Amino acid sequence: MMTSLRIGLIGLGSVGKGLFDIIQSRPDLHVEIKRICVKDLTKHRDVPASLITGDVSELINNSEIDAIVELIDDADAAFAIASAAMRQGKAVVSANKRMVATRLHELIALQQETQQSLLYEASTCASIPIIRNLEEYYTNGLLTSVTGIVNGTTNYILTRLTSAAGSNFGYIDALGEAQEKGFAESDPTLDVEGFDAVFKSTILAKHAFGALIDPSTVIRRGIAQVNAFDITFAASQGFVIKHLAHIEERNSNELSVYAMPTFVLNSNPISWVSYEINAVRLATVAPDAQLLAGRGAGGISTACAVLSDLSMLRHNYRYTYRKGLGGKGPTLSNDVTVRAYVRGNEAMINSVPWIQRQIDVRSIEANFVIGSVNLQALADSPAFRDTDTFVGMWSSE
Amino acid sequence: MMTSLRIGLIGLGSVGKGLFDIIQSRPDLHVEIKRICVKDLTKHRDVPASLITGDVSELINNSEIDAIVELIDDADAAFAIASAAMRQGKAVVSANKRMVATRLHELIALQQETQQSLLYEASTCASIPIIRNLEEYYTNGLLTSVTGIVNGTTNYILTRLTSAAGSNFGYIDALGEAQEKGFAESDPTLDVEGFDAVFKSTILAKHAFGALIDPSTVIRRGIAQVNAFDITFAASQGFVIKHLAHIEERNSNELSVYAMPTFVLNSNPISWVSYEINAVRLATVAPDAQLLAGRGAGGISTACAVLSDLSMLRHNYRYTYRKGLGGKGPTLSNDVTVRAYVRGNEAMINSVPWIQRQIDVRSIEANFVIGSVNLQALADSPAFRDTDTFVGMWSSE
Repeated sequence: MMTSLRIGLIGLGSVGKGLFDIIQSRPDLHVEIKRICVKDLTKHRDVPASLITGDVSELINNSEIDAIVELIDDADAAFAIASAAMRQGKAVVSANKRMVATRLHELIALQQETQQSLLYEASTCASIPIIRNLEEYYTNGLLTSVTGIVNGTTNYILTRLTSAAGSNFGYIDALGEAQEKGFAESDPTLDVEGFDAVFKSTILAKHAFGALIDPSTVIRRGIAQVNAFDITFAASQGFVIKHLAHIEERNSNELSVYAMPTFVLNSNPISWVSYEINAVRLATVAPDAQLLAGRGAGGISTACAVLSDLSMLRHNYRYTYRKGLGGKGPTLSNDVTVRAYVRGNEAMINSVPWIQRQIDVRSIEANFVIGSVNLQALADSPAFRDTDTFVGMWSSE
Repeated sequence: MMTSLRIGLIGLGSVGKGLFDIIQSRPDLHVEIKRICVKDLTKHRDVPASLITGDVSELINNSEIDAIVELIDDADAAFAIASAAMRQGKAVVSANKRMVATRLHELIALQQETQQSLLYEASTCASIPIIRNLEEYYTNGLLTSVTGIVNGTTNYILTRLTSAAGSNFGYIDALGEAQEKGFAESDPTLDVEGFDAVFKSTILAKHAFGALIDPSTVIRRGIAQVNAFDITFAASQGFVIKHLAHIEERNSNELSVYAMPTFVLNSNPISWVSYEINAVRLATVAPDAQLLAGRGAGGISTACAVLSDLSMLRHNYRYTYRKGLGGKGPTLSNDVTVRAYVRGNEAMINSVPWIQRQIDVRSIEANFVIGSVNLQALADSPAFRDTDTFVGMWSSE
């Protein structure tokens, strides 16, 4: 174990500043911040001016820096920084989910080529130790599925809609409230449309099952279409609507992956996870399941995950990627029968190539079908692309 | 990594049989059961007779066995087996919480002396990977408290009392239902009186903070006194009553530990964990917290934790006990101010040396006080030992 870890910090937003503050107040962590690179040098910052630079190469080429902590938004810039740092013999800690999800194949090759460690616990559900557990605990091939509430914005909105059922409080109100409280961005598209959940689903798929999956191929629907009828109907059947990232092993060669609103039984512990809290459910063949929960975003929670990665770097820790080594991981296959709920007009409901309709309702309140359908065929149907139709998965657990 | 792990299994109850079945069906786990030791040789068992023996030394002295899996109830017999096996150069996996909790000091010394691995993930909350996470993830000294619903029996009973609030369904009914469903033993004392939670609290205290604590010194109250008034009053104040094991760092040298009914705010994720499900909340200085949840008992869930330990033995894993190395861990101190809820008769309420009474109610329904009190003084008061008085902690989170 090295005695102290000397880091270069890139990005001083809420995560970077949170990390800076904890490290300054805790010398027992044995982490020393040697230099901080920021974009806007004119902005006032509550850190010693001598640490600040606007030139990233001053960190990457600094022989007194052991590891680069990269906390910027731009995925391409983050990738350029990570690769340059690793090639300069430095470990890298990143919180950038888009970079990890879209460049994972290259990032794994870079780690092998440079023999440097790249850790990114913070990229997926912030302080929930999910990647470490998938790497170190769920290693015996008994995992069958990984299901996550991986986005706090959608969970906050759906929780508020559920608790407000029966009132006039609707999707737009819940989104506004989430924005006020800092749980949603001013442009919430990435979150409410499920893009964020897709990125995290592919990172989970790699560490859970060894599968390298292109995020653009993951089946995705957001929550903007959910309404009071859906929420109330779910409750009447003993279900709660959650937006879930779901990765399931179909056989040893194939996985199905989607990020979708899902009706979950209220006896399933993941249905209890409310407001902005995230959770990941790990199911095994036994059958058995565990749930890891915590804050999935926010400066302090993300900084904590980065700190945990830094403390592992002091122990020379690297991800082994032992699942799917040598490109032998499972591949994506959505040719599987699932159960779905589709509410919309007659034409849209009928555009879904149902295998069997289990419930088929036309009423003044709503027209909807719950039935079995091929997952890929559902994703290819006009209903799935229609912005007035609500499409959700109907889970048996 | 060794190619295959050859084990001797001691005990073939629901955990042992569950483990046997999973191992037989999954050759890819690379675990081979060489021999099984049972107590009653006359009982019919659905395993090959050639594997069965009644003589434990046939396993311990067998040079073809790499590891002993010990799944028996008797803590003293389990300790004798574990020490003999380690001295014979074998690794040991145990699910016996009482053995681990009461003999931890000796077991750590044995591991050092024999250089053998002893793993016991299954001893605390079965399949929830809590010990591994405390050993490997929460290593940077930022942990401030560990709070667990570590007993499924008490959580089932309290959940049913909460959902039945307002009806005539009381403690005895809930206990009977838990027994019917297999969530409580015919003699439920160990669970409902909190002894089980005490054992787990000391195992958690060691792996979380490096403290070696004698279970008999942990402050403990059970749930047998809880009534409809307590449950309804809790709900009216936005709280839920849970039975919790709580370990909190007071300073770098001292911990307080108790296993007590506790009023928890319903915004705290641990309050959402219901029925027989267990959960452990890990709070850090950040401030931030994560929650790990899952089934804390049952043959399959316990077998899964044992299997995970076996797969780690193949990677030559050992607990490092890096916290509190060389006996420098914190010690127990209950000289701390807490907030408590005491409902009972006037004399009992007044027997508590309150520092301050925040709420003091005398009514037809109930007499109770919520106030601040020294934890040790509370534990020493007559009210704490009175079987007609309900004593709970009043949590601020």
